[in-house]
Amino acid sequence: MRHVVIMAGGSGTRFWPESRRQLPKQFLKFAGDQTLIQQAASRCCPAISAEQTWIVTNANHAAETTRQLPQVPKHQILLEPCGRNTAPCIGLAAIQLLAIDPEAVMLVTPADHVINPTAMFQQAVNQAMELVAREPGALVLFGVEPTYPATGFGYIHRGEQLADTSWPTFQVKSFQEKPNQLTAARYSASGEYYWNCGIFVWRAQTILDALSKYAPEIFERLQRLRAAIGTPGWSQALETEFPAMPSISIDYAVLEHAASVYVLEAPFDWDDVGSWHAMARLNPADRDGNTLDGMVCPVESSGCIVRTSADHLVAMIGVKDLIIVHTPTATLVADKRDEGSIKQLIAELERRNLQSYL
Amino acid sequence: MRHVVIMAGGSGTRFWPESRRQLPKQFLKFAGDQTLIQQAASRCCPAISAEQTWIVTNANHAAETTRQLPQVPKHQILLEPCGRNTAPCIGLAAIQLLAIDPEAVMLVTPADHVINPTAMFQQAVNQAMELVAREPGALVLFGVEPTYPATGFGYIHRGEQLADTSWPTFQVKSFQEKPNQLTAARYSASGEYYWNCGIFVWRAQTILDALSKYAPEIFERLQRLRAAIGTPGWSQALETEFPAMPSISIDYAVLEHAASVYVLEAPFDWDDVGSWHAMARLNPADRDGNTLDGMVCPVESSGCIVRTSADHLVAMIGVKDLIIVHTPTATLVADKRDEGSIKQLIAELERRNLQSYL
Repeated sequence: MRHVVIMAGGSGTRFWPESRRQLPKQFLKFAGDQTLIQQAASRCCPAISAEQTWIVTNANHAAETTRQLPQVPKHQILLEPCGRNTAPCIGLAAIQLLAIDPEAVMLVTPADHVINPTAMFQQAVNQAMELVAREPGALVLFGVEPTYPATGFGYIHRGEQLADTSWPTFQVKSFQEKPNQLTAARYSASGEYYWNCGIFVWRAQTILDALSKYAPEIFERLQRLRAAIGTPGWSQALETEFPAMPSISIDYAVLEHAASVYVLEAPFDWDDVGSWHAMARLNPADRDGNTLDGMVCPVESSGCIVRTSADHLVAMIGVKDLIIVHTPTATLVADKRDEGSIKQLIAELERRNLQSYL
Repeated sequence: MRHVVIMAGGSGTRFWPESRRQLPKQFLKFAGDQTLIQQAASRCCPAISAEQTWIVTNANHAAETTRQLPQVPKHQILLEPCGRNTAPCIGLAAIQLLAIDPEAVMLVTPADHVINPTAMFQQAVNQAMELVAREPGALVLFGVEPTYPATGFGYIHRGEQLADTSWPTFQVKSFQEKPNQLTAARYSASGEYYWNCGIFVWRAQTILDALSKYAPEIFERLQRLRAAIGTPGWSQALETEFPAMPSISIDYAVLEHAASVYVLEAPFDWDDVGSWHAMARLNPADRDGNTLDGMVCPVESSGCIVRTSADHLVAMIGVKDLIIVHTPTATLVADKRDEGSIKQLIAELERRNLQSYL
């Protein structure tokens, strides 16, 4: 049976002041009426229903996850005791799936990306599922055609194209870490490289076998966890085994080494919603190039990204290229080009002992 | 007896979003713990006590005035039915004073300026009062030495210096309207011109006599009002007579024509708090030239004027020369040089029917 595993362990600060430790990005809305995690869950419906939806998050975010996704059965919201990157996360989901469905096929997706249009995504997932049905050992990735020479993503170098697929699908020749500017430009120009968007399709058993082969230190602990599923000892076992796993991505632990790794060219638009700039990519601008969300009144202002509620007015006069985000307890005013310094701001807030704003 | 008349009819928008129609500038704090109107009232104490303090405001602002100045007797808070500039305002106060004190000497002052140090102001008022005691027909103004070629103030051209005053005092040669830049530069450089700060000292009877002579259309209505003081017909008379008076300044109606007009060189610093820039003049800046009030965390930002409460954080990253003002219902982000467009913003809010923000 088909399942979707939504990885929702994120806890970034790049969307401060809206994202907080208690409310990371996946719980926010950036376009439309749904939050990112709600979009991720509904993106697969009706092909994969709420009964086949699994979330991997942590205790801090369990309540908000349940609140935003009431349709997902509670026991399918898995709680990592700590973040250990994607390999342990996916392993944890795989053993849970196998416990109830030995033939489980997993669609694995981050909780905090934007994908459009949904219909194209569903079609692509179907393609991947068909490939896995034909070749049960297949590990299928989605590759996004670069639209600019990004240095913030990993790249997938494609190899030989598969025959008999209705959408371009290739063997994976290699994975490339986040490149420098020059290399990124070369990748983008070549037409042979895709962005690795972290969305995968495979049988649960296949990825577990691959972990056993390429990441035995994870696999052994997963085996001990597996024995505890459905027993009173589960929580204790999870607390013991999970934090002891190495923190490593599934790409690095498995995909770079495995055979039968394929990349399906994504027929959808993908955005990792990596910073406030995503607001401008995901929403229409006014005639002065401002992207406005909430009650905003710009006067002689252009190129701004502004976000507030429907009842708190933000007015601008004569400003350019600012990011302005108002929340009930904090407001950010940042130069668009200097947004990276948000980390510096977070450090300053910590230094000033302003924990309540983090 | 000495009285102070505080003119508090202002209702500007230059301090939006903090100043609103219901809460104009005189009710706000810009430096220190007191609002501007509280400063104006306490500035004369103890020489002129609350019992000798009169406020001229209007019905819209009566409640807030009473709240901020509980020590002022309620019947000394006079309510203009509408704004008619300073001549009718001062006339209204003069007849009320004369009704209880035929020898009343009035210090007339706007409610929304900043003056420092208080001791020097009090000394200057004493000087002016002494001059009025010596020469009962004197109309005394305070003149502020220009510190830059301001085009936003009227100027007083001084004439012959009086003998026997302990502070430089001059006959007034002429009044000059707000000049253009070139003329302002000439005035400032000459050493013969002062800014007219709108603070006056005279006997109530003297100014009433002058109104009778130079502004009979105001005086006649004041006479009818005078007859109604203390009678049940007062409110009705005020509603009838006051709005019918011409809207005209005391300078234009009287001072430009009268004899015995003197200017006393102000020995104090004066600020008309004309825009958010006053925040920077009235408060110390941090080492990056930011003037910060409330909970503010600047990162790589300079030259900003920021105002928020103690519990709403405003954080800036990489911005320069902005005015940022946060209030519970609205936030302004403006280029410092473009602050004048606040009028344009107000018009836009009206056009959008956002009355609740005005």
